[in-house]
Amino acid sequence: METDFVAWLVDRLPKDPRLEVAAGDDAAVLRPPSMRRTVVTVDMLTEGVDFRLAPDCRPRDVGHKALAVSLSDLAAMAARPEAAFVAVCLPRLGGAAIAREMLAGIEQLAAAHGCALAGGDTNSWEGPLVVSVTALGSVPPGQAWRRDTAQPGDLLVVTGRLGGSLLGRHLAVKPRCHEALAIAAGFPVHAAIDVSDGLSLDLSRMMQASGTGAILRLDDVPIHDDAVRMSALPEDGLSPLEHALGDGEDFELVLAMPADAARDLVRASGRPPLELPVTIIGEVTATPGLTAVTADGNRQTLAPRGYVHDFDS
Amino acid sequence: METDFVAWLVDRLPKDPRLEVAAGDDAAVLRPPSMRRTVVTVDMLTEGVDFRLAPDCRPRDVGHKALAVSLSDLAAMAARPEAAFVAVCLPRLGGAAIAREMLAGIEQLAAAHGCALAGGDTNSWEGPLVVSVTALGSVPPGQAWRRDTAQPGDLLVVTGRLGGSLLGRHLAVKPRCHEALAIAAGFPVHAAIDVSDGLSLDLSRMMQASGTGAILRLDDVPIHDDAVRMSALPEDGLSPLEHALGDGEDFELVLAMPADAARDLVRASGRPPLELPVTIIGEVTATPGLTAVTADGNRQTLAPRGYVHDFDS
Repeated sequence: METDFVAWLVDRLPKDPRLEVAAGDDAAVLRPPSMRRTVVTVDMLTEGVDFRLAPDCRPRDVGHKALAVSLSDLAAMAARPEAAFVAVCLPRLGGAAIAREMLAGIEQLAAAHGCALAGGDTNSWEGPLVVSVTALGSVPPGQAWRRDTAQPGDLLVVTGRLGGSLLGRHLAVKPRCHEALAIAAGFPVHAAIDVSDGLSLDLSRMMQASGTGAILRLDDVPIHDDAVRMSALPEDGLSPLEHALGDGEDFELVLAMPADAARDLVRASGRPPLELPVTIIGEVTATPGLTAVTADGNRQTLAPRGYVHDFDS
Repeated sequence: METDFVAWLVDRLPKDPRLEVAAGDDAAVLRPPSMRRTVVTVDMLTEGVDFRLAPDCRPRDVGHKALAVSLSDLAAMAARPEAAFVAVCLPRLGGAAIAREMLAGIEQLAAAHGCALAGGDTNSWEGPLVVSVTALGSVPPGQAWRRDTAQPGDLLVVTGRLGGSLLGRHLAVKPRCHEALAIAAGFPVHAAIDVSDGLSLDLSRMMQASGTGAILRLDDVPIHDDAVRMSALPEDGLSPLEHALGDGEDFELVLAMPADAARDLVRASGRPPLELPVTIIGEVTATPGLTAVTADGNRQTLAPRGYVHDFDS
């Protein structure tokens, strides 16, 4: 029941000096860090679209993913996580157990990223599970990474490896917050986006917002082992590269950087504080559109592929 | 389709000087007002529980209500609205039209309260409409109204009139933001809560949080005409007073105030800047629990009644 659950929840959440009024009131009151901007993102996940509750997708995994995708948005802005708010609509049957397990996943990830759990809203209905996380971060004035400021001549850099996230990483999302802050502290970045819907689609969004285009060097796209494994499945029908270009839910970062800075970043990667591999995959052009280039010099237009929510009027 | 809709939406939203990065990026970047705290609340509304789409409940009304209930939470903290974020899950069929109409309702209310629309998340599925609004406000340090700081001897004050909101006010919610700011500017308030789930239930929550109880003078509870009309309906079976005590979705404010200040506030109400009637309905006691008193001196324990989300483990 809502009243008992909220009382249990409010008792359980750790105190945080950033909160003048913590969860349990009509709203939370936060002390914003001085001389910093407030970065805000919200993401809603629904059962059947973003996850299916099953033995390999427990409520704990859903809680983790729900916070992780919002933290990934903060990473894409080079923002430091500060506080998160969780609104849920629970199925009436079994809702309390689902809520408690989800919270365990949320708490663990929030603690790992220094993010206070500051409030939310608990509802129930006859429908499936819905969870919406609002994450607040902070960044110095003018220092947030944007997606609309890539410049022709920038090199395109991607963290980690891409493709095949459905084999498990789409739940065990690792938001690149620590990596983003380490990169922002040491390297100039002109534009950034996280790979949520698919590398080619998210890259096309960055280019369109910036009024630029991109050349993508296909042979340099870092392909995840999961993409290779998915491609080998009977009836898959896609190459590992196609998985890397269109699968989405990798939650890696794509950065547009001055060429020298991009090369410096690649040299600095693979060891602390940036253990993650970083790869140059192409460059930004003044001409709009995406062009794919292979090592043998073959060029062709690349159609953006990825996940788009479909709804009609 | 999501991409077209988001592009249309981002184009349509007015510029706001509080936004360093507006809607359309991975997250929004806000310039927090200097020397103020950030107040954050989130509310999720679901079709079938909080509203039913019908000729008398258009998507525009749903949009209005979704933002209004969050603004009401800001009012209950004496916070000035700053920015709102809207996450939706749309039914695939007709989703675009629903989204556009909802936005019209949200825009109008946001403009009336000086609240920037700064971002959100657009999803779709085979299920019913879900909308979650995150509202950010601001308040000077230490000045947010809380629910856990009522003091024995305080008088209890309520804005407006209560009961029968289902006859229409549960959709056409009027958040008391302007009234809250006017009261906060002129009168000391020890504690506050908004009447979302029912006067007796929300009052009991304030008393429990404060470690106090309350005497409620039943003959002084301001009863809305809608409560009288509902009570007169065949098979209603409740008195107007019972509607006023338990219906909820009035979104009026209950305040615990020093006695002199409460009387001053009542005298000041009914004319600008506080046209709304304000009524003293009881007092805060050191003894926990709610006690109802009638004009003839009859006293009895009052069981809190109101809407509570039900879910089981």
